[in-house]
Amino acid sequence: MGESAAISMASPPRSFSSLSPPDVQMELHAENREKLVRALRDHLAATSQPARGVVILQGGEERTRYCTDHAELFRQESYFAYLFGVREPGFYGAIDVASGQSILFAPRLPGDYAVWLGEIKSLSYFKDRYMVDMVHYVDEMVQVLLDFCGQPGEPLLFLLHGLNTDSNNFSKPAAFKGIEKFETDLCTLHPILTECRVFKSEMEVGLIQYANDVSSEAHIQVMRRTMAGMKEYQLESIFLHHIYMYGGCRHCSYTCICATGENSAVLHYGHAAAPNERTLNNGDMALFDMGAEYFFYGSDITCSFPVSGKFTRDQAAIYNAVLKAHDAVISAMSPGVCWIDMHKLAEKIILESLKFVGIIIGDVDEMMAMRLGAVFMPHGLVHLLGIDTHDPGGYTKGMERAREPGLKALRTVRELKERMVITVEPGCYFIDALLKPAMEDPTKSKFFIREELGRYKDFGGVRIESDVVVTSNGCRNLTNVPRKTWEIEAVMAGEPWPPKQN
Amino acid sequence: MGESAAISMASPPRSFSSLSPPDVQMELHAENREKLVRALRDHLAATSQPARGVVILQGGEERTRYCTDHAELFRQESYFAYLFGVREPGFYGAIDVASGQSILFAPRLPGDYAVWLGEIKSLSYFKDRYMVDMVHYVDEMVQVLLDFCGQPGEPLLFLLHGLNTDSNNFSKPAAFKGIEKFETDLCTLHPILTECRVFKSEMEVGLIQYANDVSSEAHIQVMRRTMAGMKEYQLESIFLHHIYMYGGCRHCSYTCICATGENSAVLHYGHAAAPNERTLNNGDMALFDMGAEYFFYGSDITCSFPVSGKFTRDQAAIYNAVLKAHDAVISAMSPGVCWIDMHKLAEKIILESLKFVGIIIGDVDEMMAMRLGAVFMPHGLVHLLGIDTHDPGGYTKGMERAREPGLKALRTVRELKERMVITVEPGCYFIDALLKPAMEDPTKSKFFIREELGRYKDFGGVRIESDVVVTSNGCRNLTNVPRKTWEIEAVMAGEPWPPKQN
Repeated sequence: MGESAAISMASPPRSFSSLSPPDVQMELHAENREKLVRALRDHLAATSQPARGVVILQGGEERTRYCTDHAELFRQESYFAYLFGVREPGFYGAIDVASGQSILFAPRLPGDYAVWLGEIKSLSYFKDRYMVDMVHYVDEMVQVLLDFCGQPGEPLLFLLHGLNTDSNNFSKPAAFKGIEKFETDLCTLHPILTECRVFKSEMEVGLIQYANDVSSEAHIQVMRRTMAGMKEYQLESIFLHHIYMYGGCRHCSYTCICATGENSAVLHYGHAAAPNERTLNNGDMALFDMGAEYFFYGSDITCSFPVSGKFTRDQAAIYNAVLKAHDAVISAMSPGVCWIDMHKLAEKIILESLKFVGIIIGDVDEMMAMRLGAVFMPHGLVHLLGIDTHDPGGYTKGMERAREPGLKALRTVRELKERMVITVEPGCYFIDALLKPAMEDPTKSKFFIREELGRYKDFGGVRIESDVVVTSNGCRNLTNVPRKTWEIEAVMAGEPWPPKQN
Repeated sequence: MGESAAISMASPPRSFSSLSPPDVQMELHAENREKLVRALRDHLAATSQPARGVVILQGGEERTRYCTDHAELFRQESYFAYLFGVREPGFYGAIDVASGQSILFAPRLPGDYAVWLGEIKSLSYFKDRYMVDMVHYVDEMVQVLLDFCGQPGEPLLFLLHGLNTDSNNFSKPAAFKGIEKFETDLCTLHPILTECRVFKSEMEVGLIQYANDVSSEAHIQVMRRTMAGMKEYQLESIFLHHIYMYGGCRHCSYTCICATGENSAVLHYGHAAAPNERTLNNGDMALFDMGAEYFFYGSDITCSFPVSGKFTRDQAAIYNAVLKAHDAVISAMSPGVCWIDMHKLAEKIILESLKFVGIIIGDVDEMMAMRLGAVFMPHGLVHLLGIDTHDPGGYTKGMERAREPGLKALRTVRELKERMVITVEPGCYFIDALLKPAMEDPTKSKFFIREELGRYKDFGGVRIESDVVVTSNGCRNLTNVPRKTWEIEAVMAGEPWPPKQN
């Protein structure tokens, strides 16, 4: 924290930001490695195998854009970041299961790197910075690994190979010249390492909390500066500036979704083909889904609010339906609870609210059975959060994805356990592409009150998303933004957040 | 320009920004296509070939990060952007040489795209937006192309295949199922299309001018807010915010280089392994190399200035050496001039200045012959600028790269011609990795005055970079930032830029 004073010197008055970017914490990654080694040893013991072999991971490489020399800003591969925290490209990392010793392999950089890209760091620099036991060059890797694996038995490498259940892509096992000299195991590492990532340590939760603090403050800044006539991207810019200028966050967890009006019904708005370029109108709802990343760990927060700063009756009705679901889920969360039940709880509360508002009619249990909830909330209620925004481990071996609308979009169907960090993000959207077929479906059409629904044609949608850590007997919300309608109106009118105690 | 009023509504007072993002100009890309067709027809006529065949390019695809579903913000491939201006991923584009007709092929999106990613646009939307003659789906491409190529003779496709002389990578020719039904030509298109890109149209210069206006204003904002105690990245954040908030620029032309103190001697500082994270000191020089991109067209500007806001004698000496070179080159630029001569002119002026300052001693012509200039300016003086920061076409067929230090780094050795847009970026750096061997080299050591040079040990470097378009009888500087030491000091002290007329 030694340099935070320097930042506040340059910062505007404290009312603007109370952030103070914490120092790197390499103990965090050392702890992650220890956890993996323990889990691997337990697994090997449980399956009557000797505690031997070396875990080897390949870090990410810097990429250039298409055929040009335009270098894209490098971001480390997430499994590698988890174990080693290395920010430079071109590394390999190894961990010896028997001794727990860790080795980094650094690329040997050409002499003119010093002219173009910066000081060529010594191996001991990397050893100190990343708190590993040894550092060698990548071109020495085969020999070093052979020495490590030599005794007893054949040299064995645990490689990372497995499915990411969000992308359906497979991780890339380490590849290098000379790998044929080793026995390789492609099955053991991935599920065990993924499971390690699911449960966050104190230090990991601390970083996710900091990313949440940064993002919460930036969201409030965005709310305060929102007004009709602006472009959506100007609010993205305000967010990005706040998290970098005051929070030290160069990366976002994902491309900012700055959706207003009908765009707020597009779940992943904001990408290159649907950029944040609409002009805000006074009657719009804004749905801003944005999260900062700090030293690899992310946040994922959505705030929905009226551009005018004052909720209309219709806006408040839909907003409160979603907020009620959001709060109910967080109240119900504790170890042992299953996410499918939480998803259904949110759906049910939203449907009941829509019925109360007079948009739909009929028996809510029947609606639930017909999966009417998925018409208004087609996405899953939650996902794990960590080094990836959609952190892996949502489905373990043998768990199947549901097939029903809404439930099939759930990124995890696990039971809650202590130390999971997970988003809670109910939403209610008026999406033509879903409403039209539902209203034409003879089994569902009876639920809709067409003339009332018509009022919400250009409404878009509302999403409320917080990041929550499961505790031993409940959970803790890491996100700190105004949620009640009157809190939002007060903050948008310039009141402080958190509110002053009277 | 219809929506610029909306932006200024939301903007701070005009003194903060006078920018007004212009509308998309698809005529620009239609003009680029016409130019290519004319050039291809001329080439075919000159080589006694019939004017037939279809140019086909494959646009870029969206990518996810490693094995995850983290979508990276898409940026179109540059040749495709040049001809079609398409911002969406997954397209192909074709141009019939005989008729000049243009066709876009759009990906057929799955139904749930509308829920997650936005409205599925009709083919006629793309036809109107991109001003092409026809739009079909990618899965109809083979048949459409066969119909086009059918008569007379065999169906012929011109594919893009050629070397990027900055990256040494090859462009990726369009690939698709059914390509074996066509005769393909991999040689003709690349050099001709690259040559088209070298010479900018009025509209292209207009966009590069706008990108320069945005970046110039943002650089001035950065200068004004620089002070000791800040982090380098905070100034990056101020730049990024200004270009997006007021200029509508979501992309930079390249990763921002925000180098202060000794970091300013690292030519491409700022990347992930050497991020902009140093704390500024009062005695530092700052070297900020940052450029905005607008509708694919970029800018590339470097400002060097003292963190304190006042040049010391040493800082002014080095700065003025570089400025003299910068101004002399721009004064000398006109069609027919060769870049190698300009590079040497800059080197000579810098060496003369360093001699005058008393850092080096001896005969400047002898220093030139010994390539001493490359010790202080190891990079090339210039590069072409356009849709890529290092725009292609710097070396045409048969042109060889020089082998001497400094000259070998030149990204072009061409003769200047009207409508080239090129950076002029002399620099003078104190780089240990170059100074030490030069001082130990028995043929060069005599030039250095060691005790004087010692004062510049932690100085870093100075670079001054402007973007310049070659005109019929000279050139025009598109960059508008304070350059004289007193102008910089005045702007940093809060004086307006451009200065008020008295």
